[in-house]
This record gives sequence, C-alpha cells and structure tokens, in this order.
Amino acid sequence: MAEKLIVIGGTAAGLSAASKAKRVRPDLEIQVFERTGYISYGSCGLPYFVGGLIHKPEDLVAVTAEAMEKERGVLTWTHHEVTAIHRREKTVCVRDLDTGRMDTHAYDKLIIAVGAAPAVPPIKGIHSEQIYFLRTVEDAIKLRQAVSCVSSGKIHAGRVCIIGGGMIGLEMAEELALTGMQVTVLEQLPRLLPFMEPAFSQSILENLERHSVKVFTETKVTEISAGANFAYQVHTLGAGGSEQVRERTVEADFILVSAGVLPSTYLAADSGLKLGLKGGIVVDDSMKTSDPYIWACGDCVQMKNLVTGYPAYVPLGTTANKQGRIAGANAAGADETFKGVLGSMAAKVFEQYITATGLSVKQAEEAGFHPATTVITKADRASYYPGGEDNHICLIFDRDTGRLLGAQGIGSESIAGRVNVLAAAVTCQMTVQEVSELDLVYAPPVAPVYDPILIAAGEAVKRVKKR
Amino acid sequence: MAEKLIVIGGTAAGLSAASKAKRVRPDLEIQVFERTGYISYGSCGLPYFVGGLIHKPEDLVAVTAEAMEKERGVLTWTHHEVTAIHRREKTVCVRDLDTGRMDTHAYDKLIIAVGAAPAVPPIKGIHSEQIYFLRTVEDAIKLRQAVSCVSSGKIHAGRVCIIGGGMIGLEMAEELALTGMQVTVLEQLPRLLPFMEPAFSQSILENLERHSVKVFTETKVTEISAGANFAYQVHTLGAGGSEQVRERTVEADFILVSAGVLPSTYLAADSGLKLGLKGGIVVDDSMKTSDPYIWACGDCVQMKNLVTGYPAYVPLGTTANKQGRIAGANAAGADETFKGVLGSMAAKVFEQYITATGLSVKQAEEAGFHPATTVITKADRASYYPGGEDNHICLIFDRDTGRLLGAQGIGSESIAGRVNVLAAAVTCQMTVQEVSELDLVYAPPVAPVYDPILIAAGEAVKRVKKR
Repeated sequence: MAEKLIVIGGTAAGLSAASKAKRVRPDLEIQVFERTGYISYGSCGLPYFVGGLIHKPEDLVAVTAEAMEKERGVLTWTHHEVTAIHRREKTVCVRDLDTGRMDTHAYDKLIIAVGAAPAVPPIKGIHSEQIYFLRTVEDAIKLRQAVSCVSSGKIHAGRVCIIGGGMIGLEMAEELALTGMQVTVLEQLPRLLPFMEPAFSQSILENLERHSVKVFTETKVTEISAGANFAYQVHTLGAGGSEQVRERTVEADFILVSAGVLPSTYLAADSGLKLGLKGGIVVDDSMKTSDPYIWACGDCVQMKNLVTGYPAYVPLGTTANKQGRIAGANAAGADETFKGVLGSMAAKVFEQYITATGLSVKQAEEAGFHPATTVITKADRASYYPGGEDNHICLIFDRDTGRLLGAQGIGSESIAGRVNVLAAAVTCQMTVQEVSELDLVYAPPVAPVYDPILIAAGEAVKRVKKR
Repeated sequence: MAEKLIVIGGTAAGLSAASKAKRVRPDLEIQVFERTGYISYGSCGLPYFVGGLIHKPEDLVAVTAEAMEKERGVLTWTHHEVTAIHRREKTVCVRDLDTGRMDTHAYDKLIIAVGAAPAVPPIKGIHSEQIYFLRTVEDAIKLRQAVSCVSSGKIHAGRVCIIGGGMIGLEMAEELALTGMQVTVLEQLPRLLPFMEPAFSQSILENLERHSVKVFTETKVTEISAGANFAYQVHTLGAGGSEQVRERTVEADFILVSAGVLPSTYLAADSGLKLGLKGGIVVDDSMKTSDPYIWACGDCVQMKNLVTGYPAYVPLGTTANKQGRIAGANAAGADETFKGVLGSMAAKVFEQYITATGLSVKQAEEAGFHPATTVITKADRASYYPGGEDNHICLIFDRDTGRLLGAQGIGSESIAGRVNVLAAAVTCQMTVQEVSELDLVYAPPVAPVYDPILIAAGEAVKRVKKR
C-alpha cells in the first residue's frame, strides 16, 4: 500500500509542500484539505481584487484543483476542515463543510499549513455587521460587495475606517481610496510602520494624506457602535499634543480591521505539538514539528531570524512558499533545511514603494548589536537624465564591526531592487565598507554613477568605529 | 612649502582623485590639467545630449571649475594638455591649447587620469569629413550639429551609419533613431554584444529592428568613400547565408564610429611607465604605477577582474570614479585598495534594458571554471497584477561547485536591480543554491512571489553536479 501524506491547508505553503513531496516521491498518495472554497490563491493579491484592479477571484489562483490532480497527482478538497489531529492513531478528522459529514483519514506523514488568522483586537462591538477582515478569498468577496454597495448607493464617497496601519492596512487604504472612498486609517502606535526609520514613517503618512487618506496615529479604538443612517461610529482615544488624551469619533459606512495576524494553531495546540512565539508551531530547520511524523510550514509556524538566530514570526507569502517546498521534500524523505528569514517585505502605496529587509534598530539592539543608522536621499537616475525620482535608503549596521544588519527604502519602484541588493548583503554578512565597494550596473537612465546604495554605504562607513 | 599634487585629466577619475586627495590632506596644493574645454562631465550622458534629451553640455557637468576651486580647493585648467612627464625631474610639460604657451610644472605626487580614446578601425577613408567619434563634449557638440544639419536639411529622414554595435553604439542607435534618422548599425562580430547569452543578442537585435534600426552583424567595413549628394558610401564585406561573402554598400549622410576605446597611454608610455593589457597603465591595488610617485586611475589603467584576479580592461564610469577616489586618497598618504571589477554594466535601448555583471561563459572558461548557464523568462510582477513585463535572466555558474560567476539580464527597467543583486552575489562568492534561498522583497506590484532571480537560481541548482 502506498504511503499516505496528508496536508492541512491548500494555499501557498500547503500546495508547495504537496507538489514538492510528489516530485520527490511520486509514489506518495497525497491529499490536501482546505477549509475555504479556494486553493492556491495569492492572498497578497486580495487587496487588488477588493479594489477592482483584479476582476475575478479566479485570477488570483495559480493552480486549479483539476491541474493539481492531473498534472501533479495531488488530490485537493476545498470546504474540508480538519477538526482534529490524533497523533497516536496517526489520523485526522475532516468535516465536509458542504454536507456536514465527518470522516477520519489515516496518515503516515502529516504537514500542517493552516496559515494565520486575523488578530481581533479587544474592541467593544467588533463583532457587529459591516466589520470586515481580509484573509480569505471569501473575506475579499464580502469586502468587495461592501465597497460596491457603498459606492453605488451614495452620491458622496462612502466612508471606510481601517483599524491598523500595517503593510496590508496601507495597501487597502490605497485600493479603497482609488475606488473613490473616503478612507481613515487608525493606528494605535505612535507612528506608521514603527520598525522603520522615523522619517520614513512620516513620509509614508504624508504620502497617504496627499492622496486624501486621513491617518490618526497613537489612536486606540475603544468601541464601535451603530450610528445614524446605517453608519458606524468608531470611538477612539488618542494622545493629543501635550500628552493629553483626546476622544474622537470617526463615522464610517463600514470598517476594515487590519490589525495583523496570528498563527492558526488550535489544531496543533489541541494535539499537544510544541508551540512557540505568538503560539506558532515550533519547527526545526527541516520544518519538522515536535512530532517526528508531522511537519509544519508557512504562517502557522515560528520562524528563525537569519541574522540573529532568534525566534521570529514574520508571516509572508515568500517564506510560506519556500518553507512549503522544504517541508514537502522532507516529508517525502529528503533532507533540506530552511535557514531563516530576513523579513524582506515590500508594499506599493499609491506611487510610493515601501521596502525593508533584515533587522530594525530595535531588533538589532535586542540581539546585542550596537546599531547605528544612516539615511540618504538620492535620485534613481543620473541627475541630468530626465524622469529621475528619489530613493530614500536607511541602513542599519553595527557601529563596532560595520556589519550590515538591515535596510529600508522608500521611493520610486526601483527601490525594491536596491533593497534586494542589501538583502543579499545582509545574508552574506557584508560590512558597509564592502557594500560601498560593490560594482553595480550603471547607465544614466538606470542609476546615478554612484548608485544610492553606494552613497548610503559610503555614509555608513564614516560612522563605523575605527579600530 | 606645500606639497604639490598634479592630476592629468579632469573628468570622472581625475576630479574624484583631486577632490579626495584634498579631503585627506587639505594642505596639498592640487592642480588639474584637462585637455578639453570641459571638466567633470558625465561622458555616459553624451548620447542623450546628442539625441536632444539633454539640452546643454553644461547640464552634464557635475562640478564647475569655480566650485572645484572655491568649495574643494582644487585648481582646474581646461584646454591644458600635458605633453610630457619627466619622472626623474618630477615635472610635467603643459601646453595651453588656447595660447600655445608651454610651461613646466613640478610635482611631488602625480596622478594620471587621461582616460581612453576611441579605437580607430583600419578602414580606408575613415579620416574623411562627416565621420564622427563620440568621446568628449566637443565630439558630442559636433555630432549634434551634424544631426540637426541633416534633420533640418531634408524631407526624408537623414541616414546615419554606426560602425560598431557595442553598448555605446546601441545607445546611440536609440538616440539617433529617436531624432527621426534612419539608422544602420554595422557590427563586425557574428552577433551583438557577443559576451552575452546568444538568445539575448538575438532579442536585442530584434528590438532594434522593431524600432526600424537596421542591423548587419558579421559585417566588416572595408572602405568609406564619397557618394552622390554629399552622402557617403560605406562598403562592407559580410558573411552570407552559407558562408559566402557578400559585398554591401550602405549610403549615409554621416558616419559614427563606435568601435570601442583604448587606454590613452602615450604619456605613460613615453615616460617609461609599465604598461599591460591593451596598453593600459599597470597599477597595483593601491592604484600606484611602477613609479612610486605616480598613481593612475580610470579608463587609462589595466584593471583586475574581481572574480578571476586576472588583468582586465573594462572602461566604465563607475570604476573610474571609485579608482579616482582611491588614487587620490593614496597619493595624499592614505592606504586604500581597489579590489577589482566585475564589469557590471547597463544600457537602455528603447524600452529594453540590457545589463550584465561578472564573467561571461568565455571568460569563465578561460579562468579555468567549468561554466554552465541557465536562461529563464519571468514577469516582473505577480502574474495577476496588471502591467507586468518580462525579465530575462541568464546565470553563469560553475557546474562543479555551483558558484555564481556572472549574470546577464534584459527586459524591463527592473532588470537592473535584479542584476545588481546578482552582482552582490558574485562578489560574495555565493553558490546558486544560496542565491535560490535569498529572502527577497515581495508584493504583487513589485515582483512575483518567486522573484525571477530565485527562479533562475532554482533552475541553475538542478544543473550543478551532485557531490
């Protein structure tokens, strides 16, 4: 009888795992159970479906269930929720959400790839109607319906309130503003994206305001209550100018809660697997859990920071895909390792691109480094070539050794490639001196003769302690 | 008395050297002699001045003579040609090209930064009128006049023939075609940019043809002669379909010779300095020549390939600037080293960006590696996000060790950032396996979830010998 691999979760990590396992061991019998109605969708694309840039949810799907079966030999089941893992018996209980029928499936190897769930802040009234979260395709469909309802039913632009000014919150602010809505972002922390250089947080805020998005930082939502005309009132407490606390009420036709995500690990917890940071499943470098027959990958696991070696939780699609492949390969008998995450990330908010990689100053301090930063602004083309736009780069480096620890960049689209260079440099433990010597490509339409990367590194070199 | 530093040459390398030397030792008395009428101009911008995208030659100038004197304390003299170096006496002879007056200047330290001169192919008639080279601002002004003469004097587009299809030849093809001229490029070698992946050469050729630029490869110019109506006839010999040699005559209103450059080293040669590859001045890692009081930098020196350690000659503005700083610092008493060049380069030809870094297959073979290549094509955004364009990436790696040796990319603008990541990877001696594990930034408008770099590296991994 063929060995059986069961994969719980059918998006980035789960399907990568299943596909890779089948390639490594074609004789494996693989079944994937997915709770939602969609497999293999790019969840990072959901904001663009809500905003209307992407027309159908199916456009976000990379591989259909048919292709998974025919081309990859993997059976996938949507609307099938795994409700329990029985590790001793090596079985899982599965509920068909369409029929309610429960089944028990035996496994030889199991991969948990159930992802994350939106964090639900403890706000009175947060479970009312017209309060949306964005995680699944179904969430996105509901949200898009809300957008079109509000847009079509009113002369004035609809009002939406986004609770949480993280990367997704800001992408959604862009998308909803582009539909013509009046968008307000409420962020509890003193500034947007507080892991970034303060001047960058400020620039990101100003860019949103330039596009008529209202942003209130240091503003905690205390209650959501029904208002007049089917609108909602969002009650907040915020710090005023001189530390005086200020109450504010924001009216909104609907509310999007984008307050981060947490690992979905109730299955793992119930079955007694070891959990770590934020409740993420503890895995070793081979993505194996504390059970020798169970691997886990993607947004449900605790990760390791590549620079510090410390536990981290940075749920990203890139990581989920890579971890999925490794979990799948190893569940099929290979011996691959996942080395850790830099937390490299990007977002586009209107014409501003926001990118970061490696350690923030705070993370660097916590890891025992002595971080210093340099921030530079430089056009992304030769000064005399038309059309150049500014790149703003912040380098985080150890002032004792000059080792590059992290980098952040905002500005024109080309900032992404530059921060990727710095991601490679962080990975290779380059010093800022070494970065300043990099032989990068140059042509007037592509870069200045001293690329912004080199300018930033050259400034950093001046701040490294001489030895 | 103050120590005297003389710098011969006032563009990228020379002015970088002078400025840096003054910063390191403010008491140095520094004079820069420049043969042409312009200092500190971005010569890589000349094609865009010829094409009209940049309006005045002054727009290409980074620092004026006044600023050099007032802000940096460096005296610069234009139209001053150094005609001889007397090493024993530590003097140079300088001719004022405006007055003809000759002077002798004593130096304590000397920096040679005289750059390169256009290679002049042995073609009968190449010294006729209306045959242009592009190296100095003066060359560019003449060429621009020729363009406007031809453009204004005819109903039909003027015809220009470019001899040489290298990076500059192709940039000029773009710029001249955009003025409305009928452009023909004649390349002696079997394909354009033969250090690149053959499919890329083909794509580059097709892109030119799509923009109505005629390209003849494997076509050697034998003679240029006067034709009717003040036009020129360019006689060529080219290989036909079946190795049969074919004669062709191309009519042109003027001719641009863009057949590469050679180090301008007559001064160094006459004074008995050691010369190397292509006649470039031999320098050590501190940019010192065979004379302990003379440094040299920029397009006039022999370089060292960073990957192989072998001599190389890759005249590029980026390198000239970096070497200039190091020569200047060291002439002023510092102890800095220049580690070598990858030869990272870029060009924009219409909407196609062309980039390369590190070793070509041929260079890798010559250096004793066992190179293999992978070529991939991948959109530069998530498949579902509108507006994505293709990136084509070629990796050159050692098939025994997996070490990345070089990379080339063509496609949309974002290819430059990606090849820069690979330049960092080559510098750090990463393997393709390590490159495939890089944690790069991702958002649907910025990259696919597996960046083209990771796809290319993943393909390469499959071709590395298992050990």
